[in-house]
This record gives sequence, structure tokens and C-alpha cells, in this order.
Amino acid sequence: MQVREGTLSVDKAKTALSSFEDIGFAKIDHQRETRTGFPEIIFGEGKDAEQIISIISSLQQNTNRVLATRVDREKADAIKKVIPDIVYNAKARTVLWKSESEPDFLYNGYIAVVCAGTSDLSVAEEAAVTAEAFGVHVRRIYDVGVAGIHRLFHHLEEIEQATVTICVAGMEGALPSVVGGLISNPIVAVPTSIGYGANFQGLSALLTMLNSCASGVSVMNIDNGFGAGYFATTIHKIHRNTELLGR
Amino acid sequence: MQVREGTLSVDKAKTALSSFEDIGFAKIDHQRETRTGFPEIIFGEGKDAEQIISIISSLQQNTNRVLATRVDREKADAIKKVIPDIVYNAKARTVLWKSESEPDFLYNGYIAVVCAGTSDLSVAEEAAVTAEAFGVHVRRIYDVGVAGIHRLFHHLEEIEQATVTICVAGMEGALPSVVGGLISNPIVAVPTSIGYGANFQGLSALLTMLNSCASGVSVMNIDNGFGAGYFATTIHKIHRNTELLGR
Amino acid sequence: MQVREGTLSVDKAKTALSSFEDIGFAKIDHQRETRTGFPEIIFGEGKDAEQIISIISSLQQNTNRVLATRVDREKADAIKKVIPDIVYNAKARTVLWKSESEPDFLYNGYIAVVCAGTSDLSVAEEAAVTAEAFGVHVRRIYDVGVAGIHRLFHHLEEIEQATVTICVAGMEGALPSVVGGLISNPIVAVPTSIGYGANFQGLSALLTMLNSCASGVSVMNIDNGFGAGYFATTIHKIHRNTELLGR
Amino acid sequence: MQVREGTLSVDKAKTALSSFEDIGFAKIDHQRETRTGFPEIIFGEGKDAEQIISIISSLQQNTNRVLATRVDREKADAIKKVIPDIVYNAKARTVLWKSESEPDFLYNGYIAVVCAGTSDLSVAEEAAVTAEAFGVHVRRIYDVGVAGIHRLFHHLEEIEQATVTICVAGMEGALPSVVGGLISNPIVAVPTSIGYGANFQGLSALLTMLNSCASGVSVMNIDNGFGAGYFATTIHKIHRNTELLGR
Amino acid sequence: MQVREGTLSVDKAKTALSSFEDIGFAKIDHQRETRTGFPEIIFGEGKDAEQIISIISSLQQNTNRVLATRVDREKADAIKKVIPDIVYNAKARTVLWKSESEPDFLYNGYIAVVCAGTSDLSVAEEAAVTAEAFGVHVRRIYDVGVAGIHRLFHHLEEIEQATVTICVAGMEGALPSVVGGLISNPIVAVPTSIGYGANFQGLSALLTMLNSCASGVSVMNIDNGFGAGYFATTIHKIHRNTELLGR
Amino acid sequence: MQVREGTLSVDKAKTALSSFEDIGFAKIDHQRETRTGFPEIIFGEGKDAEQIISIISSLQQNTNRVLATRVDREKADAIKKVIPDIVYNAKARTVLWKSESEPDFLYNGYIAVVCAGTSDLSVAEEAAVTAEAFGVHVRRIYDVGVAGIHRLFHHLEEIEQATVTICVAGMEGALPSVVGGLISNPIVAVPTSIGYGANFQGLSALLTMLNSCASGVSVMNIDNGFGAGYFATTIHKIHRNTELLGR
Amino acid sequence: MQVREGTLSVDKAKTALSSFEDIGFAKIDHQRETRTGFPEIIFGEGKDAEQIISIISSLQQNTNRVLATRVDREKADAIKKVIPDIVYNAKARTVLWKSESEPDFLYNGYIAVVCAGTSDLSVAEEAAVTAEAFGVHVRRIYDVGVAGIHRLFHHLEEIEQATVTICVAGMEGALPSVVGGLISNPIVAVPTSIGYGANFQGLSALLTMLNSCASGVSVMNIDNGFGAGYFATTIHKIHRNTELLGR
Amino acid sequence: MQVREGTLSVDKAKTALSSFEDIGFAKIDHQRETRTGFPEIIFGEGKDAEQIISIISSLQQNTNRVLATRVDREKADAIKKVIPDIVYNAKARTVLWKSESEPDFLYNGYIAVVCAGTSDLSVAEEAAVTAEAFGVHVRRIYDVGVAGIHRLFHHLEEIEQATVTICVAGMEGALPSVVGGLISNPIVAVPTSIGYGANFQGLSALLTMLNSCASGVSVMNIDNGFGAGYFATTIHKIHRNTELLGR
Repeated sequence: MQVREGTLSVDKAKTALSSFEDIGFAKIDHQRETRTGFPEIIFGEGKDAEQIISIISSLQQNTNRVLATRVDREKADAIKKVIPDIVYNAKARTVLWKSESEPDFLYNGYIAVVCAGTSDLSVAEEAAVTAEAFGVHVRRIYDVGVAGIHRLFHHLEEIEQATVTICVAGMEGALPSVVGGLISNPIVAVPTSIGYGANFQGLSALLTMLNSCASGVSVMNIDNGFGAGYFATTIHKIHRNTELLGR
Repeated sequence: MQVREGTLSVDKAKTALSSFEDIGFAKIDHQRETRTGFPEIIFGEGKDAEQIISIISSLQQNTNRVLATRVDREKADAIKKVIPDIVYNAKARTVLWKSESEPDFLYNGYIAVVCAGTSDLSVAEEAAVTAEAFGVHVRRIYDVGVAGIHRLFHHLEEIEQATVTICVAGMEGALPSVVGGLISNPIVAVPTSIGYGANFQGLSALLTMLNSCASGVSVMNIDNGFGAGYFATTIHKIHRNTELLGR
Repeated sequence: MQVREGTLSVDKAKTALSSFEDIGFAKIDHQRETRTGFPEIIFGEGKDAEQIISIISSLQQNTNRVLATRVDREKADAIKKVIPDIVYNAKARTVLWKSESEPDFLYNGYIAVVCAGTSDLSVAEEAAVTAEAFGVHVRRIYDVGVAGIHRLFHHLEEIEQATVTICVAGMEGALPSVVGGLISNPIVAVPTSIGYGANFQGLSALLTMLNSCASGVSVMNIDNGFGAGYFATTIHKIHRNTELLGR
Repeated sequence: MQVREGTLSVDKAKTALSSFEDIGFAKIDHQRETRTGFPEIIFGEGKDAEQIISIISSLQQNTNRVLATRVDREKADAIKKVIPDIVYNAKARTVLWKSESEPDFLYNGYIAVVCAGTSDLSVAEEAAVTAEAFGVHVRRIYDVGVAGIHRLFHHLEEIEQATVTICVAGMEGALPSVVGGLISNPIVAVPTSIGYGANFQGLSALLTMLNSCASGVSVMNIDNGFGAGYFATTIHKIHRNTELLGR
Repeated sequence: MQVREGTLSVDKAKTALSSFEDIGFAKIDHQRETRTGFPEIIFGEGKDAEQIISIISSLQQNTNRVLATRVDREKADAIKKVIPDIVYNAKARTVLWKSESEPDFLYNGYIAVVCAGTSDLSVAEEAAVTAEAFGVHVRRIYDVGVAGIHRLFHHLEEIEQATVTICVAGMEGALPSVVGGLISNPIVAVPTSIGYGANFQGLSALLTMLNSCASGVSVMNIDNGFGAGYFATTIHKIHRNTELLGR
Repeated sequence: MQVREGTLSVDKAKTALSSFEDIGFAKIDHQRETRTGFPEIIFGEGKDAEQIISIISSLQQNTNRVLATRVDREKADAIKKVIPDIVYNAKARTVLWKSESEPDFLYNGYIAVVCAGTSDLSVAEEAAVTAEAFGVHVRRIYDVGVAGIHRLFHHLEEIEQATVTICVAGMEGALPSVVGGLISNPIVAVPTSIGYGANFQGLSALLTMLNSCASGVSVMNIDNGFGAGYFATTIHKIHRNTELLGR
Repeated sequence: MQVREGTLSVDKAKTALSSFEDIGFAKIDHQRETRTGFPEIIFGEGKDAEQIISIISSLQQNTNRVLATRVDREKADAIKKVIPDIVYNAKARTVLWKSESEPDFLYNGYIAVVCAGTSDLSVAEEAAVTAEAFGVHVRRIYDVGVAGIHRLFHHLEEIEQATVTICVAGMEGALPSVVGGLISNPIVAVPTSIGYGANFQGLSALLTMLNSCASGVSVMNIDNGFGAGYFATTIHKIHRNTELLGR
Repeated sequence: MQVREGTLSVDKAKTALSSFEDIGFAKIDHQRETRTGFPEIIFGEGKDAEQIISIISSLQQNTNRVLATRVDREKADAIKKVIPDIVYNAKARTVLWKSESEPDFLYNGYIAVVCAGTSDLSVAEEAAVTAEAFGVHVRRIYDVGVAGIHRLFHHLEEIEQATVTICVAGMEGALPSVVGGLISNPIVAVPTSIGYGANFQGLSALLTMLNSCASGVSVMNIDNGFGAGYFATTIHKIHRNTELLGR
């Protein structure tokens, strides 16, 4: 992490462009951390426990933090047997490994993860755990959907103080529009597939967020909690890159 | 209007089922008022001024109020030349004719027409004018979209006192969800086609409203201000039918 | 229920805006009844029996009626073991709890629930049970779809006398258009996902109802029987609020 | 027309399979009448007056009837200058040419063309004119949409007597479902693009008709009045082919 | 079946409009045969064996033929235990009951059922069995899709002799367009949901058929084999109603 | 601008929640700058020159910068006659007014605006001008689409140094995915409606960007250059808020 | 053109990756011919005559052939005034410039361009002209749609001899499926936007072609005649690259 | 295989047009190899092991190679018991049978199969195995998606040397656009259904590929690896048909 974000030189980029490890079924991108500032993350869906284990093992040699998403409990148990120092978060369905020497947090300040209903919790947790995996503090503000808007106002100050706010909502997905009219910092909106009928598996919330009448809102794919956590971290790292905690 | 709403007898219905006037290009449904409590309304789009004039003329013999919607100014001018006592509302694009003896208002109480942005005004006006055409008082509360939610709170009491609230919104259409969490009376949501890109001509707002996480919200077709005004009037008439103003 | 509907003061609203109970995985909105005139309803899908039990238990302290929807029989059995005085309706998939002192009905008059085919029954029952849960009488008129329109005419008088008519239909969803041409009171149309092929899980019926050529029809989300029952109750309560049954 | 429909021999088919006239920008299919029982019809959209004139001229040599659809008045006037004995129907936007010796009607019985609203008239007329162009009697029953269903009952007997009924409807397109529940003969449903908002240029009516809960209904493309007239004629010709009028 | 099709009098219609049997969960429409010429058919999906048994039992009193569609083998076995003289067709998933005295066939001539691929067979069989259930002869011409068009030409003469041709096709659904260019009698096109990817569960074939460049083609809902069989029968009955087989 | 971003107190928020100016057809939100750190922006589409002039005039009293988007040249000319010190950007279709004392730039560093094809230029310019309107430096890197990926590599270093990169692309919209794999700072992707056929007015590019296999990409509505510029500015302001240029 | 296709070395690619000309509003990619074997083509839509002229002028220095597509007659006339030796094809809407020394054809053999209806001609011509622009012979076989399939059989031998066949069709787009079942060489299918209603601007034909039951068919974007001509040329060049005509 | 591709005579075509074997549930097209140069391929989905066995057995009499796709392991095992010399590829889900005398490869040169992510592997393998089944060499280049574009550059030379490149990608499907800008030979793009949310089961990748800004790219149906392998083989066979390996 000694590389200063934002100043990755072109020479380094060129080196990066020519180095990865081929482990048969996948090409492990060891320079990715150098190149983008993040290690390769493992998308667990469609991979079996063994495949996840070998990718983690390969990545452990070059990075201090490895995150696998969309891992169900059964796979997580199988992974834990081989790599006991992983942490599994059942709600977020994430597996996190950190080297012992690695501190929990790398940055000052925090990201707010705001979520509309209890059914959206799993996506919100994926976002929160992702940001935490990269060393960012997170404040969780859950079940504050617009149908009972006073619950949101209770937390307004806490949201305003965050560098970035991740807004997770299913059904009609109106929450980011309301939050967007109240605060001045960037909002990352994540539609979820929670709903039924004319919800069309999250299309309704997705369109709502893309058409938000409030400015300062950008949108992730449906249920993409990981993407939101990652994107918010890219913002948070910029914010704080002149005041990184000593390591 | 002597017929008591809600008690239209089956015999009357049977008579209704066998009477209308054929004026060539259309069948004028003179018993409609008896049957549904509303005179036939003229959907002006796709009809020329002459056609609208002959339908109004035919209806004038059996009703005291005639409303034509989606009439542009040019047609309105042509109609006014033949039937000078019509009133044209350019924003709502409506033509209203009332017999001289007909009072302006028939009911106590009022309907609230709430609208998110200035671009949604034309649809909101169509709703408001429709309700007024049937003798209902309307309170207009415009430009109170969720991007600046404090504007809405200024009018909350006025909205709460309405028998029904019509909520008109384009873009992401989040307004009815917010209002729905704050009041207890019925809300009629009207999506408008205002927006661009992933708005898909109002689809976004339509889906938002159908998926509203707030209960007590029902939805009209995109841009159907007339339908909302009509539907809200059916509710308002029920409410007040034991206390009709003397005529 | 001493609060007069329609006159909820702004002061009360402000209080409402600052009070709820945080039970960990959810924020229970005890003032919701004050604010909107309805207690919080529990959307059972995605919640397990234990979660539903703790929400019911929390709500029992502040309200006399609690309704949970989308609860399958297995969950219902588990809930009944802990809270024996609930009533489970298997067709509607609803769990209802009422305090002993609470009367069955609170209002005169009735809502009609009309349904096109036997396959739409589950949605129709959800609508009916919801209205009953809030103390409104319901008349069920089932299997009267437009393919045998004479069955509808048999019940026309009963439908005309209702304050509101809920029309539930799948397949092409034409029923509300036909009913809308025959009666003068408000119609709440509910498309169901019954059908196949170009039905697209209820999209066909939804579009039909949104485009209804009959006025006086508003639309709910696909399969949203609860929403229709709730919305119809908001209308019925207005109608009768000068003649509430003595409690 | 001496060829008996339904008995076109395979030898004739083979000949048919090897004969057409190449007039440069198009291949005129002179054997089409032999092969399918209908002359080639000219789809006027996207063709200029000159092109239509040369196709008509070419076809006149081998057939007694030529129909061109989707021809606007300007083109029709240009065609009439060169071929004065055409008949232009402005509502249907059709150009018909018949040889002098050709009788108006070739069959007993009639097809009913039923249409929901005055805006659907142009499509209904295209259907009616097409059937007439092939020598079939047509009864027009217009403006009998389901919003005023008693207008339909007035004409029920006339519809029941038709060999085939063409049902034209826009908006929600419910008419064929209602008619389908009342009569026993085949119904050809034509959705029109009349409507707005969630009508999506006729998609709503199209889906309604495809999902009709009444059996005995088949569907044409949106606004395809010609196709309906043609298809109904194929049915009518079967019906009457043992009792062709003497020619 | 003594009623002459096509001449059902209005008086009979009126009687029909006031008679059906309410068996609790459904309204059995005994006059339907009088009114439309067909007995009520049972859509088996979503109904359990017991429900189907009671509807069949009720219908047996007033009709000689009862057809139930979309019945899987398990339900069929349960029905057969109670009503042993039903015939189950596993491919078509239909249950047919005929009174002993009822002849197999009621009409001369035949309907052709043409199908593109072996995967479309189930829908084609549903169409064929439906027509046979109403006493119409059927010729099955299967696996003649356009990818090997010579297979179709082998059967051209047989198709030309049919009164109506039902064309069943999945994937891109091109078969009806090709057949439509070769024969003169009506074609009923049925898209199936067979395919994958951009097939979108039959949408591709449906659109293909609606847009067919060949005239004389009308379209049913995706997988609606029953509807095609029923519709084709309405045509076939017209054709032959002056030459009904003696009963 | 003395208010420190990120620390807007709740008391100020409360004041903000009760202050705006009603100029008849719109409610001017003077506290918006206090509340969100940005003045109200004028969406010019659907507003005439006079309306834009009165909103600008009203806003001039409380802010130093006013931006109007989607203004065509004709309207811009009309506005300039009344408010001569506006700047019109014809490509971006924006009108910018700044008070004389207001410096051009308020922040160090820059945002990169990268655009795939020359046809996407108008959207890219709207993004660039918006950021500049709020005092942020912009580097424009245009016509570097993936079909000639070497053009992108030429500018990689410049892109890496930006705090945020706005990626504008139409057609298939692949650019943000490629950029996202090469840099570590946040990317704001803007799909444009440039393309034809299966592009469906930008839907293709929108879906591409939402599904980007590269992390660190968030998405705006189709053609929403303004939104991207605004959102990127919210990020840039966070970054630099400890090193604001002295004013 | 001395570079052997298929053997472009990596060194050359690297050079290619660093050379283009910036003419202000566009980056001219002079190495493109080296890199991909084709000069840059100009997509004329959205570019004015002046822009097209400067791009042609710039490209003339490095290539012998320049093609501009989607150029209407007005622009073409303006271009011709400045660059008189261009050839304009009004049907294809293409502008072609060749250096005097450049031969018309570079390859043996031919591509077949087959088109279903006269309305699809413009797209077919764009494909044909594109292939010719790169020196490939083209055989045009137009108006052979499946509704009169015998016209196709007349040309079967000619189609079989082509190296590649481009199949252009609108409406339901069935032509490539039929051709695909008859020949063994590759087929490039191009859906056109010709049609109406459920055609949805070419979506119907597009889906048909993607779902073709015949193998050996690949698909281009709707109306993308240029793409088809280009793609077919890439195939033709492979085929013939051992027997290039002497130059 | 003695028939020279590209020169199949019309006489042979005519014979082909009248010969196939009817094995009851299917028509085996033995002349297909003569006609199109490929034997009939078995689409295994929806067929049981027995059906596949009888089709293979029937085809073995007339061809040296039989390929069945979409066969799961269970079916494959059942087939192997009856026909032991098949080869099952579990990733591709294909069953291949070759006569003993048949050589592995029939052509010089190779096809490149390039794939973006490990999840797309199954589709890529289906493409590769199909080409190999017809005797074409394949080079597999997997896991080179655009999110780490340097992995692609490592293989650029190998891709450039292929006659055809098959590009398989899910998620946003950007890979073919990037490859298309770098090489000059034809690219066959295959979208996969890998992804979630706004991916809509592969729609996103499909639209991306259809709208590719790079020329020389044609598209197959979602997940249609077989089609891509087959289509690429049609190209490869043309290329090499003057230098077939001696057999």
C-alpha cells in the first residue's frame, strides 16, 4: 500500500500490463493491486469451494487482504476448514481474509450505508463488508425507507458527516432521491431485487434511481452491494489520501 | 343529478342498457350520466373541431356539464366560435361547457392536487380541471418534489385535510411514496412522461408508483390527469353524498 | 382509534416524526397508526416465523389489530404456537390478530371484491381479508370473468351498492373495464400473475387495467391484494367517518 | 376465379413455383392468385405513386382485382390521374381497382367488422375494405366498446349471424374477450395503436387479445386491418365454396 | 348439438345470460354450449384433481363431451380412479370424457396440425386433441421446420386439402410464413416457448408470427395449443355446417 | 460558500427546510446552496426563455453561479438580450451566469472527461461545462473509443492523475469497462443515446455500464452529462475540501 | 494493401498502437488499415458535409479507398463540389472515393446479397456497396422473401456458389432460416426496421435471426448493412488470400 | 466428404429435397450432409437418453461424425452404455461419436476461441468442441476479459493468426469490441447469460455485441456456443477448401 493512489506511473502500468499467474482455470492478476489500488476480488457465484480456496491461496502470496463475495454458508464452511483464519459474514455472504499484521482500518472518516427495508439488508451488508474489507469505517443506518420518513430524519446528521453515502433500496427505490435532496456529499444508489409484480426483479428501483430528480446520485447494478462498497471506497481513498493513517 | 349516487336501480340500468344516439361517426351515450353518475367526456385527441362541436351539441341536450380533454388551442378557438360559452384552459388543454343555471360547486370539502415539478403541471392541471368540472373544490400544491422535501412539509396540513390527494410526478416519481407515508386518506398517483433516457416516456415513474412501499396509493396511466380527476371525484362524491349542497 | 381521521394535526405529525422502537433487525413504527390511521402491517415474505412473532408482540402493545400477509401455512403454524389467538386464512395467506375487546366491524356499508377466475382467488382473498382486518364488511363476488359476462350481470346490483369495488383479474384483465362502464363508484383494479406465455407474469393484465377505456378505475401492483384492500379501506373510512359505529 | 379453392393441385403449385415477372425494383408474382387464391396486394407504405402505378399496371394483365393499402391521399390522386377507374377510400387509405366485368360481390353471407372506439375507425375500415375488395359483404358495427357495453348488445344478433367477426380495439383492447364469450363463430382480433402512456403503441391491446380468457379468438399484428380482412376472407371463402354465386 | 351453429337466437342468448350452477369455488356455465356451441373447457393448471373431478361431474349432466387441459399424469390417474371412462393423452396433457353414445367424429374434412420441431410436439398435440375432442378429424404433420424445408414440401398437398392449418413452431417461428405463401386456406399460428437466450420464452416466435409477411396467418398466445384447436374448430364447423354427419 | 462542506449542521438543515420563494409557476429554493452545497440548477427543456430569465433573476440575488442546461440557441439568444453577461456553450447547450467577483476556479486538481466517439461530444461537453460551472478544472479527452484502443493508451497517465474520470460512450458503451480495469480512481459512466437499431436509444450502453466487469464504475441516466458533472464535483469537493483555494 | 492479411505482426501492431492524426473534432486513425486491413470508414450520420470532407481529405493521403455511409443526397452534393471524383449511391446512401490507380476489384469469387422485400433494399444496397468498396464482387438477389418462396429457388444455385451470403429481411425476418437450411456456406443475417406494430422497429426480425433454427447464421445489428458488407468481406478476404488478383 | 463444398449442384439439391428417414418421433435428414456439408446435429435438451441413442444409431449409417449438444452427465452415461465409443465433454456438455476410420482433423490452420471470464467457460467449450467435431483445430484463450486487458495483449499474436476468432463474454460483453479494433479477421461474438440484475439473462451482453463500435463482428444467440462453432467452421472450410488434408 506504499504506492500513492492517484500517481501510479505509466511505467508501472506497463509492467502491470505484462504480469499474471495462470493457475489453469483462471489467470490470477497479481499486479492488479499495483494497477488499480485494489487486490483482485473473488466473485464466488458459480465457483466451488476448491476453486475459491486455490484463488485465495494464490492471492495470499501477494496481498494482505482477500475478499470473496456471494459465498453461501456451505462453501464458507469448506473454505474455513482449509484456511481457518477467514471471517464469514452470513448476511453479506462474504468471506474475508486478512494477514495477521494487517490493521483493521486504514483511513479516517466513514462511509454511511443507508438501507430502506429489512429485506434489503443482505445487499447493504455486502456493501458495508466490502468497504470494511478495504479498511474503511462504516456506519450502518438500516430500515429508514420513505414510507416512514421520520426514521430517516433521525439519522440525517450522521449521514451528512459521511464522505460518501450508499443508499440501498428495493420496491420503488425512492430513498436516494429523498436523501439526495438533503445532503451535499456523493450518494451511491443500489437498487435491490426485493419486490414483486411490476417490480420486475429490481428494474423498478433501478429506473427510479437512474431518473432521480435529485442530483449527486449515481447508480450501481441491481443487488450489486459489492460494487457500491468498492466504488465508495475509491471515493473515500481520494478524500483521505493526504492523511493516511501511519502503517 | 336527482338520482342518488350509489342507489342506481337495476331497472334503470336495464333502461340505460338500451338507449343512445347514433350521430354517424359516434354513438352518444345519453344515459351514461344516469348509469355512472358522470356525463360522457370527450377525448379530444384525434377528433377535429367539428366532431367535438357536434358531440358537445348533442350532449348539451341531456346534461348540464360537458368536458373535452386534450384539445389544443387551435381547436379550442374553432369550437369557441360556434359555442361561445365554453371555457378553455390552455395548460390543462381542456374545454368546459356548463349550462348557465349550473352552480360552480356541488360538494363540500376539497381534493388536493400535488405535483412534483413545473414540467408536470399540464397533467396536474388536467386532473384539477376535471374535478372542478364535476363540481369539486380543488387545492393546487405544485412544485413540491422530493428533491427539496421541505417544500412538501409546508403544505402537509392542507394535504391531510383533503378527502383525496392526487400526486402527479415524472422523472423517478417518488412523491406518492413519501406522501403515502405521511397521511391517512387515499392517494391517486399519476406518473407523467416527463424525463429522458431511462425514463422511457414515463415507464420509470409508473413502475415506481406501482411498487410504492407506502400503502394507500393507487395508480393511473401515464399522463392520465383526466382519469385521476375523475377517479378522485368518484371518491369525493361517496364521501359527501349525505351532505350534497342544495341545488 | 379516538383520533378523527382526516384531522390529524401537524403537531401530532411532528411527534409522530420522532418516535419508533428499534428491535434490532427492524424499526417498529408505533406512531404509524396515529399518523396514517393504520397500524404497521407485516409483509411476511422473506421474514421467518420468529421475526414475525417478535414484530407482532411488539405491535400488540400499541394497537388492537395486527395483520401479516404472505405467510405460508408452515410459518403460520409456528406463529400460532406462540400467539394462539391469531387467525390464519390459508387462501389469502394472512395472519390476523385482534385484541379480545376489539369488535369485528367498525363501519357501515361494504366493499365488493369481484374476481374474474377461480385462479385469481388467492389475491382476491388477500384483498378481502385486509379490508375485514380493518373492520370493513366485504361482499365476495367470485368467478364472474368477461368470458361469461351474464354471471357478472347477476351481481350488478350488489356491486352498485358497494362504496368501493375491488376488481381482481388475471389473463387479459378485462373485467374492470366492463364493470367501470356499468357503475358510478370507485373501482380498484388488481392484475394477477395468472396466465402464461404473452401474459408475462401479469404484465398483460396490468397494462389492460392502466389503459382501461372506462373511467373511474385505478390500478394496484400485480398480485397486490393487500394494497387494494388497504386502499379501498382508506376510501371506505372517508365515506363513513361521520357515521362511525359507536365503540 | 374458376379454380376451386381448397383443391389447388400439386402440379399447379409446381408451375406456380416457377413463374413471376421481374419489373426491376420488384418481382411481380402473377401466379399468386392461382397458388393462394388471392392476387398480390400492394403495401403502399414506402412506395411512391409511380411504383404503385407500375405494379397495378402489371397486375391488371392477370387479375380482375388489385388492392393497394396504406396509400395517402396525395399518392392516391397521382395514381388516379394515370388509372382513373380506381376507387380511393380515405379513411381506410386504400386504392381498389376492379375490371369492369368483375361483379361487386362473389359470396353469400357476410363478415362483421366490430370496432370499439371512433379512433379505431381507420383500422376497421382497412379490414372492411379488404374483405369487400375480394367480394365479401361486410356489416360495420362501430363504436361499441366495453365502457358502454349496452351498445354492443344492440348488435349481438347481427354479429352472431356473421360467418366471422373482426374485432378492432385500441386502449386496453377488451372487446374481443367480451364478444368471444357471447358468440360461437370465429373472431379475428386486431389491436390498434390508439392510446397513450402505458399503451406502448398498441402493446397493451395486443397482449390483452393474446391472453383473452374467451376461446375462439385469434390475433393479428397491431393496426393490421388488412391482414384481418384477408384472413377473415380465407375463412369466409371456405364456408361458402359449395355455393359460390354464379359468375 | 341440435342448435344450428350461427343462428343462436337472441332469446336463447338472453336465457343463457341468466343460468349457471354455483358449485362453491366455481360457477359452472351449463348454457355455454347453447351460447357458444362449445361446452365449458377445464383449464387444469392450478386446479387439483378433486376440483377437476367435481367440475367434470357437474358438466356430465348437460353435455356429451368434456375436455380438461394442462393435466399432469398424477392428477389424471387420480381422476381416472373416480371417472374411469376418461382418456388421458400424456403428450398433450389432456383428459377427455365422452358419453358412450357420442360418436368420435361429427364432421367431414380435416384440420392439419403442422409442427416445426420435435420439441414443439406437446403444444401441437394439445391442439390436435382439442379439435378431435369436438369431433373434427386431424392430420398430424410433425417435424417439418424450415431448416429442412424439403420435408414440408412432401406434405404440401395434404396441407392444401385441409380446411384450416394449425402451424406450431418455437425458436424463430418461421414456419407459418413459409406455409402462408404456399396455400390459400386459413392458418392459425401457435408460437411455443421452445428455445433459449434471445428467444425470451417464446417472445421471438410470437413476434415472428405477428409480423408474418405472408397473409392469411392469425396468431394465438405462446404455447396455446388448446386455443388453436378450439379456434380452428370454430372455422371447420362453419365450413361443414350444411353437411353435418347424421347423428 | 463559507459553509464548510460536510459539516452542514442539523440546525441549518431545519432552517433550510422552511425557506423558499414562490414565484408563481415555481418555488425557488434559495437555501439549496446551504443545504446541498450547490445552487439550484435550471433544467431548460420544457421551459421557455421568459421562465428561465425569471428563475435566473431570482437566483442571482442569493448565489454567485447559475447554470441552465438543455437550452437551445434560440432561447439562449433571448436570454442574452435580457441578461447579457451569460455565457452560452452551443455544444453543451448550457447557459452559465457568474457574478463578476466570482473566480473561475475554486479547487486544485482536475476531473477527466473521456468520450468514446465524436457523436457523444454534446453529452461530454455538458458534463465538462457543469463541473467548470462549479469551479472545477476539467481535462477533455475525446474520441478514444475501444475500437481503436491505442488512442486511449496515449492519455492513460492524464486519466490516472484525475480525481474522478467521467466516461461518456454510446453504441455499445464498452469504454468505462476498459478504463475501469486500468485506473484506481472513481469512474462515472454516462451512456449516450447515440446508436441505432438494437441500441434502443441508449439502453444498450446503459446496460453495458451497469454490468461492467470492472469495479469502481457507477452509472448515470442516458445522456445525463449534467448529472455526471455534478456528481463528479461532489467527489472532487470532498477530495479538496482541506485545500480550498483562498477566495 | 501489400500487407498480407492474417499475418500482421505484433511489432506492426505496436506501432499502430501509437499513431493517429488529431484533426480537432476527431482522431484520424491512419494505421487502421495496417492494423485491421481496412481503412477507417466514415459514419456520416450526425456529421455535416464539411466534417466529412475534412476526414476524407485527411484519409486520402494514406489510403486508396474511402467509404462514407449514411450520407443523404444534400450532403453528398456538397461533398461532390469539393471532391468531384466521389461516387454517390442514393439507395445505399454511400459516398465512395477511390484513387484513380485503384482497380475496381481485388478478389475472385463473389458475395451474394439476398433481400426479402423491396422495402429492405436500402439496407441491402449499403451491404453490397460496402463489399464492392473493398474490391469484392457482389451478386444482388432482391425481393425473394419467404411469402413467395419459389422466387428464392430460382436463385439457389447462384447463392450456393457465393463464398458468403448476406440475407437482409424486415417484417418477421424468416429468410435466413430458410436459406440456412439449403446451403453450406456462411450466412450473415441483417434484420431491417421495416414493418410496423409488433415489429418494434426491427426487434422482431432481430430475434428471429438470433433464434434461427438453421445453423450457419450469424447476425448484425438492425439496419446495419455496412457491418454485414464489412464482415462478409473479412470472410471473403480469408478465402481468397492465396489467390489475390495481381496488382 | 468427397463433395466439394461450395459446388453442390442443383440436381443434388433436388434429390436432397426428397429424402429423409421417418423414425416416428423425428424425421432423420440423411441428405443434410450432402446439402449443407454438415451432418444433422442433435440438440439434446428436452430429449431423453433413449431418443438420443436412436437418432445417433440412425445417423451412424450415413455419416462418420455425430455431435449431440446440451447433454447432461446422467444422459451421457446412459448413452455410453449403449454406444461405448462416444466421447463426453462435461464442461461443454457434448457427446461426440466418430467412426474409427475418421481422422481427428480435416483442415490446416485454426480457430481461436477467446473467453472473458471463467464463468463463460461452458459456452466457450461448446464452441470449441463443435469446431473440433468437424475436424477443425482450435486454440483456447480463456479468462482474458477487458477488466484486465493486459491478459488479452499477451495472446494478440495467436488471435491474429486464426482464420476466425470466437469471442465469448457475459456480464457487459465488451470483449469483442476491443478485439475487433485490433485484428482484421472475422469475429463471431457469443453473449452468455452470466451476470445478474440488469444483465437480464444475457440481454446486456447481446445488445453490447450487436452495437459493437468495432466492425467485423457478427453475433450469435445468447449461450449459443454450438452455433458459433458451427458458423466459424463454415468460414474455416471456405478458407481451406483448396488445401484439404488428404484422406
